[in-house]
Amino acid sequence: MFYHPEESLQRSELDQLQTERLKAVVENARKSPFYAERLKGFDTREISTPADIVKLPFTTKDDLRSQYPYGLLTRPLDEFVRLHASSGTTGSPTAIFYTQKDIDTWADLMARSMHTAGIRKSDVLQNMSGYGLFTGGLGIHNGSERLGCLTIPAGAGNTRRQIKLIRDFNVTVLHIIPSFALYFAQKVREEGFDPKDMPWRIALIGAEPHTEETRQRIEELMHIKAYNSYGLSEMNGPGVAFECTEQSGMHVWEDAYIPEIIDPVTGEHVAEGEIGELVMTTLRRDGMPIIRYRTRDLTRFIPGECACGRKHRRIDRIAGRADDMLIVKGVNIYPMQIEQVLMSMPEVGQNYLIELFHEGFMDQIRIKVEIKDQFFVEDMRALQNLQKSIASRLCSEILVTPRVELVMHDSIPKAEGKAVRVVDLRDKE
Amino acid sequence: MFYHPEESLQRSELDQLQTERLKAVVENARKSPFYAERLKGFDTREISTPADIVKLPFTTKDDLRSQYPYGLLTRPLDEFVRLHASSGTTGSPTAIFYTQKDIDTWADLMARSMHTAGIRKSDVLQNMSGYGLFTGGLGIHNGSERLGCLTIPAGAGNTRRQIKLIRDFNVTVLHIIPSFALYFAQKVREEGFDPKDMPWRIALIGAEPHTEETRQRIEELMHIKAYNSYGLSEMNGPGVAFECTEQSGMHVWEDAYIPEIIDPVTGEHVAEGEIGELVMTTLRRDGMPIIRYRTRDLTRFIPGECACGRKHRRIDRIAGRADDMLIVKGVNIYPMQIEQVLMSMPEVGQNYLIELFHEGFMDQIRIKVEIKDQFFVEDMRALQNLQKSIASRLCSEILVTPRVELVMHDSIPKAEGKAVRVVDLRDKE
Repeated sequence: MFYHPEESLQRSELDQLQTERLKAVVENARKSPFYAERLKGFDTREISTPADIVKLPFTTKDDLRSQYPYGLLTRPLDEFVRLHASSGTTGSPTAIFYTQKDIDTWADLMARSMHTAGIRKSDVLQNMSGYGLFTGGLGIHNGSERLGCLTIPAGAGNTRRQIKLIRDFNVTVLHIIPSFALYFAQKVREEGFDPKDMPWRIALIGAEPHTEETRQRIEELMHIKAYNSYGLSEMNGPGVAFECTEQSGMHVWEDAYIPEIIDPVTGEHVAEGEIGELVMTTLRRDGMPIIRYRTRDLTRFIPGECACGRKHRRIDRIAGRADDMLIVKGVNIYPMQIEQVLMSMPEVGQNYLIELFHEGFMDQIRIKVEIKDQFFVEDMRALQNLQKSIASRLCSEILVTPRVELVMHDSIPKAEGKAVRVVDLRDKE
Repeated sequence: MFYHPEESLQRSELDQLQTERLKAVVENARKSPFYAERLKGFDTREISTPADIVKLPFTTKDDLRSQYPYGLLTRPLDEFVRLHASSGTTGSPTAIFYTQKDIDTWADLMARSMHTAGIRKSDVLQNMSGYGLFTGGLGIHNGSERLGCLTIPAGAGNTRRQIKLIRDFNVTVLHIIPSFALYFAQKVREEGFDPKDMPWRIALIGAEPHTEETRQRIEELMHIKAYNSYGLSEMNGPGVAFECTEQSGMHVWEDAYIPEIIDPVTGEHVAEGEIGELVMTTLRRDGMPIIRYRTRDLTRFIPGECACGRKHRRIDRIAGRADDMLIVKGVNIYPMQIEQVLMSMPEVGQNYLIELFHEGFMDQIRIKVEIKDQFFVEDMRALQNLQKSIASRLCSEILVTPRVELVMHDSIPKAEGKAVRVVDLRDKE
């Protein structure tokens, strides 16, 4: 049933494995100039459970930048066979280096992830993401070959050729960027094909944060099962956390990583189930271990156990970036939490606006919500009930009671380009 | 000194290995629907030397098309892990399938090829070709990692980022398309860098036929050693034939392929050293063996032995496509032969035109040659000597005496787009 025996480890076994590996990671990391300095004075014997990881310092993106390119390497440069680097010709880039062993580990984790989503050796996978420095291309490719799938390195773009390849080779699995998937579904229809008749059955959608609604829309439009994946080049690339066939959160491979979720301001762990910043530690990277990396990605641990039987903890889909966090009345609020509540209500239209202001010395939050025409009725009582209902649902999600204002469809000004969802008036008063 | 022991095999050992492997290839190929039919009645015992390959039938591009997609496979589809396909959304495509063993063999041959050109594990290689369905990307990438080089999957385009990566990571080897190399050398200067100061030492230039003059220009402009490579997806991709550090022709890896050079009209072997169509047989491909594949690429065996000590025969750089061949007075002539002679003479300008016509019942060939202004003097005798000299050099190359007409610079009409080099008036008379 499982691809690797590590998938069936019980919690106590995972804890023990993580403790051993974390100790080894600390010792290995010390061979790099950066961690030799950063971990000076830390005694590895202080680690006796995975929870002791909090005794170790964080590593940030700025650390990676300041150590560019070689500061985190634990081995001589000629032992590395691959690097992926952040794009951009200006600014401070980051680079991640892999030994052959690291490439093999990554391919194994990726193959396991795909197996977890129900993909098997007999599948034909079309990799529709770009290759090159972006880890999504070679990462998925190597994992797919490792699993034994017939792998088609189609790359990005060229919709008509993609469709031809899918039909000619009975492609059963697509790796596709979520936003491209929505476009592609429409193109397939325009080319005269019914998605129901296409040979595909599974789409792997990652690389871009997206909502549950987007996933459901992809599944309906394409007549496919879509599985969410999470990865970042600092932790190899794709294959860090992946949905199983239960589709209820992404299992973080805890034999290879220790995940934590912290309050991005205090750095303390949040309560179980609360949203915060994901912090990740590599347990199986040889040439460039990274300890307590602050991903800036927002998510939460999903409480309870998964029906699939795996004990590896699950994270929820990425709910935004830590940099988007608002602090209102001392409570951390993420705009994505508000959007999720609003978009789950059938009366609510496409647009909303969050305004923060001061009333006396108190923070206040006001949310303007566009209501669909058919619900914008003259019955004042109905509207008041809707308003209360929205406020109450929001309060139970963000733990602060917002003032909710219902407004007509299309009455909130639209920005050109990226939508403006938050206006903070507190600094301007 | 060598990467694989097979590189040091003597001729008699290579012959023996090829004989054994050819027999195995025939038996394996018969498991595919196509060759089961094509080789019906052939008795493998008829093979007792590599020369017996002529008893086997050719395989053509049209065969691959008619068998698309699965007709040449010797194993069940779920044993394959990769396919590369010809591009294009219309017309008849071709597809090449690889098992994991085939991918490993290919990576080994590619690693050997790079080692042959002087590349070592301590090198840093930037792969500047596109990835995806084109075999040049993943082929070079896998070979480079196999050899143990630090490999940067930069992909095509984005010149400024390429330069930054090269400088930041002390890149010593580039894989670059020849035409892009000429452009890139200029861009490097425009960005304010002197190629002499760049860390590179070796360029692998393949994927496009190019002249020796282009190679020399790349070497001078970029201050680099440029090595020619030959490959085609039907024979895996790159890594089929590669220049050693002697830079005098490309060694075909004869433990993995049997090369032949034939007259494209008669199908017979040409005399040693004569130009003809390259025909290739895979000796180490498991899932999709191809026997006597007519590549349509024109080249010749380079006579004699290479100073490097390898006995694997060398082919000359690709001199065009078999479809370009002209038959004049019963002799096969390739326009590229004429161009090579003309472009080696300092008096000759950039343009020329080959005209074929009938005189009585005889074919005749006339070549109009533009002469640079400084050589287009009024001294009739000097011009006559130049004319004779050109005709005589051409005759020793193409074995037919052409009529040579010297014309002024820019007097031959230029085509928009691809140059028209040949006008055949014989059918119109």
